[in-house]
Amino acid sequence: MKSFIFEKIPKVYFGEGSLKQALSTELKKIGSNVMVAYGGGSIKKNGVYDEIVKILKENDKNIIEFNGIMSNPTYKKVQEGANIAKENNVDFILAVGGGSVVDCCKIVSVQAKTEEDIWKLEFEKREFPKSGIPMAAIVTASGTGAEMNSGAVITNEELNMKTGMLGSLAEFVVLDSTYTLTVPMKQVISGAFDTLSHCMETYFGISEETNVSDEINEAIMRNVIKNIREVIKNPEDKYVRSELMWDSSIAENGLLKLGKITDFQCHQIEHQLGAYTNCNHGQGLAIIHPIVYKHIYKENINKFARYAKEVWKIDTTGLNDEEIALKGIETLAEFIKEIGLPSKLSEINITDKEILRKVADTSNISKGCCRQLTSNEIYEILLECL
Amino acid sequence: MKSFIFEKIPKVYFGEGSLKQALSTELKKIGSNVMVAYGGGSIKKNGVYDEIVKILKENDKNIIEFNGIMSNPTYKKVQEGANIAKENNVDFILAVGGGSVVDCCKIVSVQAKTEEDIWKLEFEKREFPKSGIPMAAIVTASGTGAEMNSGAVITNEELNMKTGMLGSLAEFVVLDSTYTLTVPMKQVISGAFDTLSHCMETYFGISEETNVSDEINEAIMRNVIKNIREVIKNPEDKYVRSELMWDSSIAENGLLKLGKITDFQCHQIEHQLGAYTNCNHGQGLAIIHPIVYKHIYKENINKFARYAKEVWKIDTTGLNDEEIALKGIETLAEFIKEIGLPSKLSEINITDKEILRKVADTSNISKGCCRQLTSNEIYEILLECL
Repeated sequence: MKSFIFEKIPKVYFGEGSLKQALSTELKKIGSNVMVAYGGGSIKKNGVYDEIVKILKENDKNIIEFNGIMSNPTYKKVQEGANIAKENNVDFILAVGGGSVVDCCKIVSVQAKTEEDIWKLEFEKREFPKSGIPMAAIVTASGTGAEMNSGAVITNEELNMKTGMLGSLAEFVVLDSTYTLTVPMKQVISGAFDTLSHCMETYFGISEETNVSDEINEAIMRNVIKNIREVIKNPEDKYVRSELMWDSSIAENGLLKLGKITDFQCHQIEHQLGAYTNCNHGQGLAIIHPIVYKHIYKENINKFARYAKEVWKIDTTGLNDEEIALKGIETLAEFIKEIGLPSKLSEINITDKEILRKVADTSNISKGCCRQLTSNEIYEILLECL
Repeated sequence: MKSFIFEKIPKVYFGEGSLKQALSTELKKIGSNVMVAYGGGSIKKNGVYDEIVKILKENDKNIIEFNGIMSNPTYKKVQEGANIAKENNVDFILAVGGGSVVDCCKIVSVQAKTEEDIWKLEFEKREFPKSGIPMAAIVTASGTGAEMNSGAVITNEELNMKTGMLGSLAEFVVLDSTYTLTVPMKQVISGAFDTLSHCMETYFGISEETNVSDEINEAIMRNVIKNIREVIKNPEDKYVRSELMWDSSIAENGLLKLGKITDFQCHQIEHQLGAYTNCNHGQGLAIIHPIVYKHIYKENINKFARYAKEVWKIDTTGLNDEEIALKGIETLAEFIKEIGLPSKLSEINITDKEILRKVADTSNISKGCCRQLTSNEIYEILLECL
């Protein structure tokens, strides 16, 4: 295996009732002023907000609110949060929500600790934050795995860029899948597909051969696929929900990437599609993945053939490796249709070729798992996605 | 999935050259007095000791030696190390070796921070240490995964007990498989079988159904089996060595146990066998596993059948689940012979039935993955092992 450093990962409290267990243990270690950060208010409807406020009050914490964090969180929103944190001497941030809330808070955390503009710091000076307000993530919608790492996807509206930044790592994470029961099924599926996408983007990264990280990855992919089908059949099944939640975290805690070089080519394209259209992340990925793979599979036929056999268990009778590889990609495309995700950009009302040209021109920054895609080829891919 | 808490795990530096990378980063964070702890001196022959001393001196550290740590480290040795640590105001412990050295240091670390006898504290007062001298593990022989957790197996010679204690968790871990190239092949295979044993003991633990941890576990087991065969064919293959090293760490970093209740029934028996005979750990396990499984598989036929199919990929044509389950255990037994591990206690010169009676009477403390074994059944098992 290639060399790697596996950084520390957050302590995880997993399962029903883990919020109370986590907070009663962890709140003792933190200061008085606790920012409760969330999105559009669904946590007020499903009772999570009340539960958190109750425990915080019992522990004599002052609550500072930061709400209205949107999907595809903006850099402007980060600044708003950082200002609130500074003005209120926030000691600890509780990010309560899905990947957007968690990502936003990771950057709020570090922006609140510096007078410099964090965007300029990271993208112009190429300096990365060394300290931030400590934080935790209470996950109420899973898929992104954002709670397990310090990367954050932020949209800079002025620059029309949706891209990765480096922020704080959560001190601890609460994963209670019962909170996901009120998430709309469309978002559940889209989130779970995001998990599958993380697995695939890692799996098709560079390594001389299939290493044990890839073999673990295949197990996760099979589990995600099985449980997406299950959750559609039995939306209330807590066991299925909990496995999807843990799959999401493992896929992004770094484990699958060990000994691999990955670059998240499909994510790069989707991020720019999101920057220009604000489309749903998982839906965008579902449209992009099969078409990108049809463009690149010939350069790594062995790996795509292995993927077809190990992940999709396709019948290989009479097929050569190239045919097997292609059948794997076709099976992925059929699965996307089966679970109700879109296969075409037109299905999510994206038809403007000028926008697609801009997306293509701004998303060719990945080195490529098989080869780097040119702007023109990304544009071709996006046209095929229409 | 069942609820769990996934505690923090050490930062891992993995790969060739990772020792220098790790120490140059981490030594800056620690005090002046560094204990270098090791076993019989193999690290002086293979150059690791010189490399460590050189880097420590470059970083102006005082070196305190603690050597001669034996396989099946004794409680007396722990006391010796703790006294050296106290007398020399040791700030940091570098455990350099395999599982025995690492386990010994975990308990030295906590014993050096208390005036109470740590054995009495843990086994009589049932109190567990809250602080220890910070430590790191530089692994030169893999298999136990000891570097990834705070559990330690210590032999109390006075009490004829070899059992698990709780000590310190390493701050960081160095895994450079090139250091394992000088380990005798017998120990390489025995260590790798210990890894496989950890996987199996976890896999056959209690859960209502096969969860994603089990599916990851199957991937690790297949990888260990493949790489044991490979390392016998190509002992110098660094890729194979590195995968075995990482498998060993993953098997004991807690990941596979999430959402499971495990009790390490075969380990409990082997520990007492080791306490009475000082036999090699991996060899003892190899003898015990198939016989224990033949005693218990009927109580969990589904899981044993799944194990046969997913891990050993056996041909199931015409077989019912019970036959498949049994064939899986037989395949394990054949594999043990194939890789040159013993199948009978007599092969490792253990024939004394009185000793086996004592082993049986002191190792029935596990609740059992399928059911608790009585002393009499453990004795029966041990007689079958002869």
